[in-house]
Amino acid sequence: MTILTAEIRDRLRDLVGEKGWIDKAADMAPYLTDWRGLATGRAAVVLRPETTAQVGEVVALCSRNGIGIVPQGGNTGLVAGAVPSPAGDQVVINLGRMNRIREIDPLDYTVVVEAGCILADLQTAAKAADRVFPLSLGAEGSCQIGGNLATNAGGVMTLRYGNMRDLVLGLEVVLPDGRIWNGLRRLRKNNTGYDLKHLFIAAEGTLGIITAAVLKLFPLPQQTAIALMAVPSPQASVALLAALRPRTGDAITAFELVPRLALDLAGRYVPDVTDPFDKPHPWYVLIEIDAGGERGDIRQMTEEALAAAIEKGFVLDAVVAQNVAQGQKFWRMRESLAEVQKEAGGSIRHDISVPVSRVPQFLEEATAAVLKAIPDARPFPFGHVGDGNIHFNILKPIGMEPKSFQARTTEINTIVHDILLAMGGSISAEHGIGAVRRAELERTADPLELELMQRVKAALDPDGIMNPGKLLG
Amino acid sequence: MTILTAEIRDRLRDLVGEKGWIDKAADMAPYLTDWRGLATGRAAVVLRPETTAQVGEVVALCSRNGIGIVPQGGNTGLVAGAVPSPAGDQVVINLGRMNRIREIDPLDYTVVVEAGCILADLQTAAKAADRVFPLSLGAEGSCQIGGNLATNAGGVMTLRYGNMRDLVLGLEVVLPDGRIWNGLRRLRKNNTGYDLKHLFIAAEGTLGIITAAVLKLFPLPQQTAIALMAVPSPQASVALLAALRPRTGDAITAFELVPRLALDLAGRYVPDVTDPFDKPHPWYVLIEIDAGGERGDIRQMTEEALAAAIEKGFVLDAVVAQNVAQGQKFWRMRESLAEVQKEAGGSIRHDISVPVSRVPQFLEEATAAVLKAIPDARPFPFGHVGDGNIHFNILKPIGMEPKSFQARTTEINTIVHDILLAMGGSISAEHGIGAVRRAELERTADPLELELMQRVKAALDPDGIMNPGKLLG
Repeated sequence: MTILTAEIRDRLRDLVGEKGWIDKAADMAPYLTDWRGLATGRAAVVLRPETTAQVGEVVALCSRNGIGIVPQGGNTGLVAGAVPSPAGDQVVINLGRMNRIREIDPLDYTVVVEAGCILADLQTAAKAADRVFPLSLGAEGSCQIGGNLATNAGGVMTLRYGNMRDLVLGLEVVLPDGRIWNGLRRLRKNNTGYDLKHLFIAAEGTLGIITAAVLKLFPLPQQTAIALMAVPSPQASVALLAALRPRTGDAITAFELVPRLALDLAGRYVPDVTDPFDKPHPWYVLIEIDAGGERGDIRQMTEEALAAAIEKGFVLDAVVAQNVAQGQKFWRMRESLAEVQKEAGGSIRHDISVPVSRVPQFLEEATAAVLKAIPDARPFPFGHVGDGNIHFNILKPIGMEPKSFQARTTEINTIVHDILLAMGGSISAEHGIGAVRRAELERTADPLELELMQRVKAALDPDGIMNPGKLLG
Repeated sequence: MTILTAEIRDRLRDLVGEKGWIDKAADMAPYLTDWRGLATGRAAVVLRPETTAQVGEVVALCSRNGIGIVPQGGNTGLVAGAVPSPAGDQVVINLGRMNRIREIDPLDYTVVVEAGCILADLQTAAKAADRVFPLSLGAEGSCQIGGNLATNAGGVMTLRYGNMRDLVLGLEVVLPDGRIWNGLRRLRKNNTGYDLKHLFIAAEGTLGIITAAVLKLFPLPQQTAIALMAVPSPQASVALLAALRPRTGDAITAFELVPRLALDLAGRYVPDVTDPFDKPHPWYVLIEIDAGGERGDIRQMTEEALAAAIEKGFVLDAVVAQNVAQGQKFWRMRESLAEVQKEAGGSIRHDISVPVSRVPQFLEEATAAVLKAIPDARPFPFGHVGDGNIHFNILKPIGMEPKSFQARTTEINTIVHDILLAMGGSISAEHGIGAVRRAELERTADPLELELMQRVKAALDPDGIMNPGKLLG
């Protein structure tokens, strides 16, 4: 463990001020453990700078002294990407105090926001300006924009609006030597060289610290239709989506697959969740369609479209929410599924994607392979089938010791990942690599691709001080 | 001029075969001059490989021998980005024979296509599969997908569908050492490290040769409404767009600003173009709205929306096309504007962008500054106001010698660019840098940004053999 010299400590403390300085063990603790409790590190100090200039000076000082830096947002990530190493020789730079919305321009449909702004706060501010910022995910009440950018966050609205990367027009970044790149452009078209912002998005803080961004806003939808559909199979859900896209003018915002087991357990464990159908069905899809104000009655159109889908056999039964409360109830069921897994004894998780049309084949093969390995395991695959992104989770068999089950994690991960890699899939669709998936990335990635990433890393962070041990190691 | 050794020539000829070998001066000529005739180069040889493997072997051979490579698609670019240097020591690799559509998957809404495929051919193939590939630009009958990718092409539908970059899921790239990176992913979500494809898009062939891509398809719109609107000012056009986006459910595909002078001259020079209004107006907007099949009558909704806009004063008068022919006529007017400029004596051109909300201020300031420099010049600004991307062109004053007018190009460019840079604008919104805008990029870009680009270039193409003299020089 490298202890910072007294001189460096004093200088850092001067730079961030008392409000930005945390060095007592008890005060540092919340910044040193990840949200799932999978990893705990140590840090020389936790710094909470208030301005981009402060971040720049802190990074410059660390750079000159070879001190590793761990950038941190809301610390809600699932791959321990913002946890310092156990050695205690790294400095955590938490962006939480840089939480200003610098400017909203409704005419321009843009917002300039700092990295530490909480996602839900940005959603609220956009709505107040009669706009929507269309990133939505479970952690939105505490995750921060900087972390959303560093991990290219996904969520439930990407089918229509894309991932975080697609919502970015410009970035401000503190580079590994402390210089500030002002790329805060508000341009919809710009072709003046390499598009540097894409380097920093999804780089998990390994190439620099994103301090602010220009993001796209969209019109606030004026009508919403939400429906829960029973479908005979994942295959039917994919065909249904392909058929509904033209029919709705591509206005489908969310399209979430839910297996029977999930609806069943949600009904058991979550207050207020009930099965709206009169008999059980093998699979369900939660759909949300958002439309403008002058385009006819969207709920009626949804009812007609689903009636047609029932005739074609894509849908067995459907309930279109008749009011806001019913729609929220359907969403509550979907959003409870992370919690439901804990209640049901825990799960082995996979955050994977395959081409949308391959989802049925993947589910079939991966389920069979997992059940071959653990015959009583309970497959619990759910999520964003419209993006080919399934949270392919496996619930503990009833009666199995949690420890014996969790001990099979790597074995099951390997089985599942090998199946999807053969289909051109991804071992991390939404959550990133961080520390948790590093070994698996090394095992599975194209060596040429890793080499290219290493070259980019060496070009931008030659001393390797930015988030050491994450993503590429 | 470096002449290739006989050994290298023989080896290259073996690699590409007779059909891929062009070395006679007359046969090479079409590959050595750009579309606008601004630049003519020389080449050691023009190679037209047929497969990715051939491209890889050719590049590997050139790399080992330090031979500069100029990748070339349809050669329709406007900044001489695909023209070899006058020294004649570079090899042109034209991708035109690699024009296969490898696979269309309508269920997946994706297509795998080779770099040499002509854009219009891809549009046609998508339509045959009941899908749309939504990139559309003037050169679509001859430009190629590889060039569209290397320049991040824009066009008239980006308001809704984004630029070429936004339409890409995966790439296959021959790297500067000849190795092939297979990044042909079909994934909507993937967070497994740096997103390398974004490095090659818009890099103008300076980091590698894109040989194939996985692109997104979209539902074929089932209804289209096209209208020509008279508006009092650019300010009104921006307010109109902001108001129409929510009202239409964000279904506006194109929103093109046209000044009175342009409609006037188009009526004079282009057969079949007429002014549909009973009196002249200062500005016009061509709008296209595309919608799904089950969303009411889109033409009627457009009429209602425009009636509301007339009441608010955003619109002076409007004609909604009553049939396909009338809609096409409106588009023909818009598309003729490049030609009209030639008929009217030529123009000094700018392909610029500013934030959408700044378009009115930019037009006002830039027009005043240009008229101060050349009092009789005729401003002819038109284009994609919905993207903040204006082709801010200046027609020759009537009676001025073309040569004296064109001699003012750099002076006028500098005036215009300095104004837009103060607004956070771009000196090249759609066309790229190539050879033509290199000096201007060096004059105007943030030195830190150029340094980062140079570092990326050195990391991926350390010997500098990929498209030397373009973009970064």
